[in-house]
Amino acid sequence: MANTTHPHKERIYLEGSTPAIQVPFTSLTLSNGEKLLLSTVEGAGTSPLPKVRAPFVKSSAGGRKRTQLECAKAGIITEEMEYAAIRESYAYGDGMAFTPETVLKEIAAGRAVLPCNRMHPECEPMVIGKKFSVKVNANIGASAVSSGYAEEIAKLHLALKHGADTVMDLSTGIDDLMGLRQAMLGASPVPIGTVPMYEALDRAHGDINALTWEVFRDTVRDQARQGVDYFTIHAGLLQEYLPYAAERILGIVSRGGSIMATCMLRREEENMAYTHFDELLEICREYDVALSLGDGLRPGAIHDACDKAQYGELKTIGQLAKRCFEAGVQCFIEGPGHVPLNRVAENQALEDEYCHEAPFYTLGPLVTDIAPGYDHITSAIGGAQIAACGTSMLCYVTPSEHLALPTPEDVKVGLITYKLAAHAADIAKGLPGATARDDAMSRARADFRWYDQFALSLDEEHALAVWKSQMPENCGHEPSFCSMCGPRFCPIRTNRVLKEKFNVR
Amino acid sequence: MANTTHPHKERIYLEGSTPAIQVPFTSLTLSNGEKLLLSTVEGAGTSPLPKVRAPFVKSSAGGRKRTQLECAKAGIITEEMEYAAIRESYAYGDGMAFTPETVLKEIAAGRAVLPCNRMHPECEPMVIGKKFSVKVNANIGASAVSSGYAEEIAKLHLALKHGADTVMDLSTGIDDLMGLRQAMLGASPVPIGTVPMYEALDRAHGDINALTWEVFRDTVRDQARQGVDYFTIHAGLLQEYLPYAAERILGIVSRGGSIMATCMLRREEENMAYTHFDELLEICREYDVALSLGDGLRPGAIHDACDKAQYGELKTIGQLAKRCFEAGVQCFIEGPGHVPLNRVAENQALEDEYCHEAPFYTLGPLVTDIAPGYDHITSAIGGAQIAACGTSMLCYVTPSEHLALPTPEDVKVGLITYKLAAHAADIAKGLPGATARDDAMSRARADFRWYDQFALSLDEEHALAVWKSQMPENCGHEPSFCSMCGPRFCPIRTNRVLKEKFNVR
Repeated sequence: MANTTHPHKERIYLEGSTPAIQVPFTSLTLSNGEKLLLSTVEGAGTSPLPKVRAPFVKSSAGGRKRTQLECAKAGIITEEMEYAAIRESYAYGDGMAFTPETVLKEIAAGRAVLPCNRMHPECEPMVIGKKFSVKVNANIGASAVSSGYAEEIAKLHLALKHGADTVMDLSTGIDDLMGLRQAMLGASPVPIGTVPMYEALDRAHGDINALTWEVFRDTVRDQARQGVDYFTIHAGLLQEYLPYAAERILGIVSRGGSIMATCMLRREEENMAYTHFDELLEICREYDVALSLGDGLRPGAIHDACDKAQYGELKTIGQLAKRCFEAGVQCFIEGPGHVPLNRVAENQALEDEYCHEAPFYTLGPLVTDIAPGYDHITSAIGGAQIAACGTSMLCYVTPSEHLALPTPEDVKVGLITYKLAAHAADIAKGLPGATARDDAMSRARADFRWYDQFALSLDEEHALAVWKSQMPENCGHEPSFCSMCGPRFCPIRTNRVLKEKFNVR
Repeated sequence: MANTTHPHKERIYLEGSTPAIQVPFTSLTLSNGEKLLLSTVEGAGTSPLPKVRAPFVKSSAGGRKRTQLECAKAGIITEEMEYAAIRESYAYGDGMAFTPETVLKEIAAGRAVLPCNRMHPECEPMVIGKKFSVKVNANIGASAVSSGYAEEIAKLHLALKHGADTVMDLSTGIDDLMGLRQAMLGASPVPIGTVPMYEALDRAHGDINALTWEVFRDTVRDQARQGVDYFTIHAGLLQEYLPYAAERILGIVSRGGSIMATCMLRREEENMAYTHFDELLEICREYDVALSLGDGLRPGAIHDACDKAQYGELKTIGQLAKRCFEAGVQCFIEGPGHVPLNRVAENQALEDEYCHEAPFYTLGPLVTDIAPGYDHITSAIGGAQIAACGTSMLCYVTPSEHLALPTPEDVKVGLITYKLAAHAADIAKGLPGATARDDAMSRARADFRWYDQFALSLDEEHALAVWKSQMPENCGHEPSFCSMCGPRFCPIRTNRVLKEKFNVR
């Protein structure tokens, strides 16, 4: 039964309605001839990246200096929308399950975003929204205490290799933040997000008094010009919510939110991102930067979840989302955090209600506080659940959450964990073709096609290594048993008898 | 703010209504004086274990040769029930949230089991049922291909250290199965479960034709005499369901179920555990072995979930559960397996309906098939969810599932993963005091009490090691920052300002 043909992978391109639209996929051919398409991005890790969007930005639709949202409202299908529709449709190998019209419709309704700063031509268009596959963001970034420039680019490549759909650069406290970011943008085929407040605080040399609206605004503008695809801005954290946050065990745990709150407390003024929100919208509209409306009051403890601070801010964020929509600026909504499992669904339901179904983008949520070192798992439990309820993108949490900055190994483990959680949610949502890869895996298991199983795994190298570690040497290329049951009795072999008996297949 | 007092742990005993009832706990005193009780078992890893149940078995209630179920039906509170009630009540430090009467009532209704073979005096009574905290089982066991005697005892100690509530010995294919099991029973303060069919097949030297009812029955009786606390027996896998299993991609993946099905196919006879079920009940009643009614047709693939094979067998198991109940034999119900996240709740609901709310005991379920090497996570997502819906015990899945036998490191990671999933479900179920440890953790985070955080962690050593790996040397004993944000700006410090501002605490 064992066979000796190895599965193989190759890069292919699916062409859109014009030759300029070439969407990369990995075509996987299994040893029995079965074929699957797997999502990928162009040149992950290679340098320099092709500027795939350059022709779109110059084209009649793209050159218009209109945002994707403005085009969608006007009924114009951009090249980006078509590109994203092809990626989305074939991600699960189910043909054109999603048409460019669907992408347009979802963006026009504010239920989806296509983050692509017109200054980031390397960015391969992708769409985030509840109708589509669940996306995963990886946070990376240097800090004053740990990590440097080269390691962060290496982490970016690692994140791309393991399927990050977007990457946030959270670098702070290093000498050349702008330079690092420029390098990241040039090396990234996925949208890059930032929290501009981090750099603003650095520009103010850590002095809250020097962190004025002008410094913050200039930082936002400079980052938009660089090509950042989305900004986390904590504009919904208002003075009226601070007393509720003070009642918590852990108060404010969002770093950006905390910086903003410190400005508000020190100067006794309202949130400057809120009072100057129209100016921020103007910058975002000009470059088509999407706004990720940050939850500065996300709960950092099970105890603090679902309180007046969190839900009050969410309501304000919903009002800001409406203003984004009216201004033609794409936006999505950040969510928790730490939430008990029985209140996860409620978080999605309230986001839908308050924020008009703008895409929800959550950090987990973590469903208990007592597992530091394993918080990728604690948070993937909540993440899979909320994504099954409609959350569009999950921000990964790595094993070092609450303890340290992620190492490269943490980045990998965090991503694989979140890719499996997102995929579980895609299956739960019933996306067309979502189980194709699972079913191919199950068939490979039934046939003892071990190398096909590895090729279908989210972490091929690791699965192979674990399997090899216990197989006896010289037991043949693909033995018809495994170390779990050993050669004497194997349920899988019994199933062949069963199928013969009942004439199946 | 940092302080230099280390938290410390000590063993204490809570006494029941007689001095013979002494329930061990770990008393944790944090550096700020806060105290918590943590569940533990006697002498985990030490040898020989005290025979804590010896006086109970000899007492008027215990010596009666009645099962816990028979006592409960007769309104007799056994020492075991009282012991279990104390464990359960103080597991979350909430005083007598669960009285012995509650334990009796749940057992008498068939909604809970207290597995304790009268020949296993080292077994510290514990109760499994939806009203109580979610339990975690660890599977260990030697096989012909991998692992030996000494390593399995070491795995047992490791499982106890990391909080296994029960342990299943799945050893097969080694020379001295009985001897290994006897050693495990003597070393185990938690209930030990087995799948007697494994040993029966070994006794038949792997020859299905020699695997007769008599061989199987004798194996069951011998293991009952040894002191095994619960048996997985696949008595619900009937001929009528085999055609449905043949239609699956992965047919039968339960090893015990597959052996039984092979007997049924080879001899064209009905399931012998079903036809001789009354004889099995007689053996179990005599020793008070609980029956874990096995799901021989549990789905092994997302594709195969929730089909006629699985649900048909579940209905038959429900009928068998009724027969157990009438015969005074405690029973619980095994469940899947591989199930998409959107159908997890349905599995618990059907089990409640078909099986009269007998405790459900599931293996995960895994919510996708494509993450070998990470299936502890894939399954913890489904496990936390189904436990929040009412499943009473989760069988852990280790990182090597589908690839190899678990290594000691896998046993540890599998357990921590499942302890966190079970705890998340306890919080979701709203068990009294369930968040006490989480809240203590959050307070320790707010105060930068790092060593208190580690002491409160499910894996103290690991959390400490990750944290230490990135802290600058000579930064003091407990620095008021961490490597995530560095010393310059820390949200946690801002929260102190917030609390002062609004006069909180």
